[in-house]
Amino acid sequence: MVHAMDDSKEDGPVFLRTVAWEDGSLVLIDQTKLPNMLTYVRLDDYKQVASAIKNLVVRGAPAIGVTAAFGLALAAIHSNSRILEELISELNTAQAILRSTRPTAVNLFWALERVMKKAMEQKNVADVKNATLEEALKMSEEDIQVNKQMGINGADLIEDGDIILTHCNAGSLATVGYGTALGVIRAADEAGKHISVVATETRPVMQGSRLTAFELQHDGIDISLIPDTAVGHVMSRQMIKRVIVGADRVLRTGHVFNKIGTYQVALIANQHKIPFYVAAPISTFDFESNPADIVIEERPIEEVTEIAGTRIVPLGVRVFNPAFDLTPPELISGIITEKGVLKPPFEKNLKILLG
Amino acid sequence: MVHAMDDSKEDGPVFLRTVAWEDGSLVLIDQTKLPNMLTYVRLDDYKQVASAIKNLVVRGAPAIGVTAAFGLALAAIHSNSRILEELISELNTAQAILRSTRPTAVNLFWALERVMKKAMEQKNVADVKNATLEEALKMSEEDIQVNKQMGINGADLIEDGDIILTHCNAGSLATVGYGTALGVIRAADEAGKHISVVATETRPVMQGSRLTAFELQHDGIDISLIPDTAVGHVMSRQMIKRVIVGADRVLRTGHVFNKIGTYQVALIANQHKIPFYVAAPISTFDFESNPADIVIEERPIEEVTEIAGTRIVPLGVRVFNPAFDLTPPELISGIITEKGVLKPPFEKNLKILLG
Repeated sequence: MVHAMDDSKEDGPVFLRTVAWEDGSLVLIDQTKLPNMLTYVRLDDYKQVASAIKNLVVRGAPAIGVTAAFGLALAAIHSNSRILEELISELNTAQAILRSTRPTAVNLFWALERVMKKAMEQKNVADVKNATLEEALKMSEEDIQVNKQMGINGADLIEDGDIILTHCNAGSLATVGYGTALGVIRAADEAGKHISVVATETRPVMQGSRLTAFELQHDGIDISLIPDTAVGHVMSRQMIKRVIVGADRVLRTGHVFNKIGTYQVALIANQHKIPFYVAAPISTFDFESNPADIVIEERPIEEVTEIAGTRIVPLGVRVFNPAFDLTPPELISGIITEKGVLKPPFEKNLKILLG
Repeated sequence: MVHAMDDSKEDGPVFLRTVAWEDGSLVLIDQTKLPNMLTYVRLDDYKQVASAIKNLVVRGAPAIGVTAAFGLALAAIHSNSRILEELISELNTAQAILRSTRPTAVNLFWALERVMKKAMEQKNVADVKNATLEEALKMSEEDIQVNKQMGINGADLIEDGDIILTHCNAGSLATVGYGTALGVIRAADEAGKHISVVATETRPVMQGSRLTAFELQHDGIDISLIPDTAVGHVMSRQMIKRVIVGADRVLRTGHVFNKIGTYQVALIANQHKIPFYVAAPISTFDFESNPADIVIEERPIEEVTEIAGTRIVPLGVRVFNPAFDLTPPELISGIITEKGVLKPPFEKNLKILLG
């Protein structure tokens, strides 16, 4: 069974399948166990799904969105309710619990609203169960297709021989499969360009060393790892040609919320005149909010004070552990979407892009 | 015995004694065991001293310098040679081994040359043994005095209520005692100013979380810890008033080699108009070299791939682990020395400062 979901063997090279639906269960790669073990968890209860999102079993804005969609479908499927209004009320509760897991990435809210809307359109309990699962499955397939289209759109920005720095993990492991930022790198690789990737460790959760290094090594793409402290050094030594990262939320003004450290990578790239690209599907865009509206999630201090159960910080030391930061549009060379590559000024060009 | 060296109870608050001479042995705090255990190692052999420097039992440019000086004294004291020329030849060998431990910090070379010069001036074996130890002891006391003078000079730059960011550890644990950058913070604290310190973790060896947090907590100075990835975020949120770091080597032009990550902290501070200071004794200055001459040490990849024996990077992934970087003078607001505070232009003002 596991072989079926181990890799998605569609056209092109094999890549990791992060979120899958199998035999009536949601199956996720357990990312907390990477890189030492590639294991899967099987979830049948939306509360387990909420925990998995909260505890970073699954992470990455697009992957969280689709996972939450399946969570809502599971809530519908396993409901004992025989009355439509009761089921919808249960789904509202499930939606609220799933919503509360992570405050910053917008795909979570987008995905839940999309499934909930589908549920509300149905006329009876059975249809709600079918329709929510169908919608989640559709979003899952769309995610891969959107990533592949972003890859095609973004690959033109990459030249043969490029050394590309990426921060955090915006790859197969951040999506259903293929990836956003790493999807662009994959597409360039598939187009025959020779690409080397430099990944930052990405403290504190180390998505760079644990996930990006694992994923690119898995796919045979050249990968080197640096500590987050070495970004300035490698850029000052002309070792980096381009930066591509993902996003957790993009505002209509081009303000990008992404993994803590993204802002300083953008700032350092800008100082060294290195192009800085963001790859984000339209589902990551927030057309309503202003920068000050966005809650930046603060994560448990144990992410910083302990590693693999070993304490590395004296007891009682105060820790500030924000999970995201804000990169302003003036530091961004382009935003790669499935509809095309947005160039500054973003607000104006976004309107044109979306018609 | 340990109580005598646990803290240096001179005037002012108690601080950690990192390098001490006791009963004919060199006694070092084993910094690889911090913050979980405050333990000491006792060394009688210069080869042990070389290993201790290489393996980061002791680190920090001034502490390395004085440790190496004691190493050379130990080589003299424990020599069986009865012929002056033979002893000097042995010391040359010992010096070469001690020199080869770390290539970037200049205090190591300065200290070894100073002790070696003293040895060469002596007329017989007994005098060499006495003179080398005396010189090392003198350098050890000078280090604390120099740090205290730097503290007095630098404290004027700090205002009551300041929140000061520091990178790596330039404290008691990087010197014989008191510290360079943290010495300035201590002096401001002793002068009655209320200071809060924000320490970066400082990957990969985590001198911030393991050492700076430990040391400032030990001394009762307010300390918070952030991941290296959060520097841009806290600066963009106006949470930092000033930056103070140490240095491993300062060129006459004001180019500063310090722990990897210093350059990007300076760059980010500069973008947010936050003053960036370096605290470095004159023994850290290299009056001869140009930036391109300096070898930047690359450290073992296990510093990045493993934490507390747990692998966090897939096997076979390439890692680049430079230990230092270069901060250019245009990003530096001032260099605090025991002779006074250097302001730009550094090359001109250094000549004036040193007469």
